[in-house]
Order: sequence, then structure tokens, then C-alpha cells
Amino acid sequence: MKIVALAGGVGGAKLAHGLAQILKPEELTVIVNTGDDFEHYGLYICPDLDTVCYTLAGLANPETGWGRADESWNAIENASKLGGPAWFKLGDRDLGTHLERTRRLKAGDSLSQITQDFCKAWGIQHTVLPMSDQPIRTMVDTDEGELAFQEYFVHRRCEPRVKGFRFEGADEAEPAAKAREAVESADAVVICPSNPWVSVDPVLKILSLTPTPLPLGEGNRVVAISPIIGGEAIKGPAAKMYRELRIEPSALAVAKHYQGLVTHFVMDTIDSQLIESVRGLNMQALVTNTLMKSHVDRKQLASEVLQFIGVTV
Amino acid sequence: MKIVALAGGVGGAKLAHGLAQILKPEELTVIVNTGDDFEHYGLYICPDLDTVCYTLAGLANPETGWGRADESWNAIENASKLGGPAWFKLGDRDLGTHLERTRRLKAGDSLSQITQDFCKAWGIQHTVLPMSDQPIRTMVDTDEGELAFQEYFVHRRCEPRVKGFRFEGADEAEPAAKAREAVESADAVVICPSNPWVSVDPVLKILSLTPTPLPLGEGNRVVAISPIIGGEAIKGPAAKMYRELRIEPSALAVAKHYQGLVTHFVMDTIDSQLIESVRGLNMQALVTNTLMKSHVDRKQLASEVLQFIGVTV
Repeated sequence: MKIVALAGGVGGAKLAHGLAQILKPEELTVIVNTGDDFEHYGLYICPDLDTVCYTLAGLANPETGWGRADESWNAIENASKLGGPAWFKLGDRDLGTHLERTRRLKAGDSLSQITQDFCKAWGIQHTVLPMSDQPIRTMVDTDEGELAFQEYFVHRRCEPRVKGFRFEGADEAEPAAKAREAVESADAVVICPSNPWVSVDPVLKILSLTPTPLPLGEGNRVVAISPIIGGEAIKGPAAKMYRELRIEPSALAVAKHYQGLVTHFVMDTIDSQLIESVRGLNMQALVTNTLMKSHVDRKQLASEVLQFIGVTV
Repeated sequence: MKIVALAGGVGGAKLAHGLAQILKPEELTVIVNTGDDFEHYGLYICPDLDTVCYTLAGLANPETGWGRADESWNAIENASKLGGPAWFKLGDRDLGTHLERTRRLKAGDSLSQITQDFCKAWGIQHTVLPMSDQPIRTMVDTDEGELAFQEYFVHRRCEPRVKGFRFEGADEAEPAAKAREAVESADAVVICPSNPWVSVDPVLKILSLTPTPLPLGEGNRVVAISPIIGGEAIKGPAAKMYRELRIEPSALAVAKHYQGLVTHFVMDTIDSQLIESVRGLNMQALVTNTLMKSHVDRKQLASEVLQFIGVTV
């Protein structure tokens, strides 16, 4: 059984962690969005990759979901006293990751290789890969002009009104070789409850899973878990983005987003009234508790998702 | 009264601190060696500039003389767990300096301007300047081949035998404009007790103080303080370098090093037997306690040096 999970940041990382508690190392590959990556203070920063890895390694800050637990902030505090920007929170331990990643990229190593080596050092047994080894930059078109993703997301706190998205470099970029292989040999793809617009869409685009899906074998399954619960996102701007794009944010809107690709759709109990509409999109639908508040919740949701698509573990 | 002090790392920083305790902000400019600068983990690091600034700001680690007091090491510890090099000790607070310096250099600011802004942020009132805004790299020719300075100094702990030195980029580099102005209008130049070969020589070369001295006005004084005491260096490889270059390390050897430039020479009480030999080099000589163990010692030595060259404050 080969499962590929597509993940963005916190929500994706949580379900990936749930899946990793159930599946064997060789059964799970997590392919992570790198459209959020950026250079800051001369360092190459991959927020989603780090969130997924820190979460799988048990190093994540349990309160924020991103960054490191037991973190100190001495470097950014001093940089900020010297006039440096402090809007992107760079913890000291986290900085070590960016430093070594930057050093190895400058030495010519690929982001895939670096990520695999970091996973090994952190004791992560499942495979985590960037969607691509080439730079892709999510650009957010807003009423204040086009903004680089972290500028929009962190610096401007998602305040500007969204008009659309552009994945700079995506047309030229190739999927990471091992990510492509993992998708091609996958029995099922799990689209984690990450932001459809800016976390999942770049991955789908790079992996050519949309608009023309990769030829997943007959009977293969693509399951998505709605990040929208009761019309709101648990974390991040997904619901706000739907509204600004004049789409009512709902699990149904997410299902429509993935129509034609997704065969199975998982939505929260609170949205059970939408189940028939989702089924009308030619998807099987599962209603369950999708809110992951604890480690147990992560494993429970992962288990139900796998059962839903007929994976026995 | 305008005094220029030329400094490398720890020893130079201590005397600069002594001078700063006596001279008014407008009376002292410290010009610092940047031949030790290097790029590490993608960051631009200026060890001597930082040691001088941290010392003047009272931020230096009192035990090592370099780095920050009350430092944490979380970033380099994590980078090292990921396989990154740990031979250059990058503290978290110190990293903040490198991050912001790198960011500003990439934004096109000059090292002089950045240094002045950092000094302001750290409450340093005297002027501190890099010798040049262009990169100069001290290369150490050894029996194991040519090594970049930090590779020789920190990574290899000065173990390879020295055969000579080369200041890469020095022929093309200009002195920092304000450093040149400070030297041209200086009433006296103080060569701090730093390593003559690798801390002071690059500064002298860049400022064209050797072999043809800048036209310091008639009666102007250049005073050097020997970093060699009783045939040994207080810190660093100066004495080892002299030996490997087949010169007996002594205050006299240092005086000979600066012959033709220096008008006044300060050596330790322990070396008093060399005073006539130094005077034979056409220098005035002062014998006193040059070992700076405390803040009081720094001020005391600075005071004696200034008095020796006839500066009344």
C-alpha cells in the first residue's frame, strides 16, 4: 500500500502526523508545498516543509503548530534592535535549520536531498519531499497589488483583499523526481486539510494533478479533507479568500474546488447537511469529526480517512 | 585632537575600549581589520569588527573577549545536528548581527554605513569603521597549502606552519572613505596590540600606510603597542607566526615590523631589556604594564599611550 499525502502548513502537518502514526515508513510519502518559500536575511526558508518536519519529528511548538517547541528568540531580537525586520518570527533553533539548508543549497545540493537528510537527522522515518527542487513562488494578487506570499500572509496578516493567485516559476518547474515517482506509484492520494488556494493548488499544479490528472491507476483514490468547517477555516485565510473571491466558504466549495480530481471527500459533522450536494459532485462523502485538537484526534481522523478509501492497515 | 586607532580582534578591542574611556566621541576613530571576514552559512561575518563593537558597547563575552555575553547556542546546535559545520562558534545573539548585516549588504548598503548604524543602535558614541567597504581576504600560506584565514585560524586552530600571507583583493580595494578621511586628519595613529601579520598589516596596506606612509603632518605620531610580551602573544598565533617565519618573537621583532612608520613604541615591563634596541630603530620607547586584565588596565594603558605621544586630554 502506497499513500501520498499532499500538505501545506499546520493543518496538513497534523493529518500527515496522524497518517504517520498508522502507516509504515515505506507506505507514506508526504509531498509539501514550497510556494511559500522565500529568502529572508539571506537565508532560504521553507515554512511548510519545516512545519511538516517539525510536526512529524515531535519538535513543533504545540501552541502555534509552526516553529520549534522550547524556542528562544535571541538572534531575531538582536537583528531587530539593529533595525532588521521582525515580522517573520525566526526562532534560534529554527534558524539552525535555515542556516544549514542555505549552506547546502549554496553547495549545490537539492532541496529533496537536503529534506531527506534533515528527516534522517530528526528521526523521521516516513518520506517527506518538497513538491519541486526548483523555486516556485506563490504570488497573491490583491487590491493593493501583487504581494509575495509571506509578505501577504505574515507581514500584512492577510489583510489585503485577494483577487487571485499566481505560482511564479510553476510553468518551468519540474516536480521533484521522487515526488513524481511517489505519485505515479501511489494507490491513493490524500489531500490534507490545507488551504486549497495557496497550499494545495501549487502542489497539484506542479505534480500535474490538475487540470489533467496523472494517470492514477483505475480504481485509485484521491481523498480530500475539507479545511473549512462550518464555513470557517480552523487556521489561516482560506475562508477569507473564498469570500473575497465571491465564493461562499464551505466544505461544498472545497469539494467543488477539487471536482474532477477527488473521488472521496471528508467533511466535518457540523457540515453534514452538505453531504448530498457533495455526492452530487460525483464523490463519495464521509462526515466525521475533522477537528484535530490532540495527537489522538490526528490518528483518529487519519484512520477514518484510510478506512473510507478502503485502505486496511 | 584626532586619534585614529587601528585594531584587529581581542587585544585591539581592549585598547580601543581604553581609549574610548578617555577620548571624546569626536576625538577617536577606530579602523578595524576586515581581512578576517568571511561568508559562512550564507551570512557575511566580520569577526574583528564585531569584537571591537561588542567590546566598546559592553556586550562582549568577558571570558573569551569575542562573541556576546549571556549568549545562547541554539541555532548552531541545531544546524550542527543537521550536519552543518560547528567549528565557527555562532551564538544566537551574535547571529542577529550577521543576519542584519547580510540583509543590508544584499540591499546595497556599505559596510561602513552598516557599522555606523549598528554602533548607534548599540550606543557606541566613538566612530568605528571597517578598513574598506570592499572585500579583502587574508589568505595564509602554510605547509598544507594556502588557507582562508578563518579556516586556518579557527577550523585548523593555527596548527599548519605559516609560510606567508596574502591579502586577496587588497590591490583593488579602496580604503573606506571615512577611514581615509580620519587618517588624513589624524594627529596621531595608535596601532593597537593586535597581530602584526594578520590584523594590522592588512589595515596598513589598505590605508597605504606602508610601504609609503600617508603624508601624516609634520610632528604627527604613530605609536604601536607590542602584542608580544616576554616572547609570547597574550592571545592568538602572533608568536607562533614569528617563529615559523624564522623570526624570534619579541617586542623588538614587532618594533622592526613597524620600522619606518612608527615613531613611538610601547612594550611591557618584562621586556625592558629591549628598550635600547628599540630606540636604535629610531623610535621613542615606553616601557610599562601592557597586559590588560581589567577595564581599569585598559584605561590605564590608553592613558599612558596618549601621554607618551603628548596628547593631553
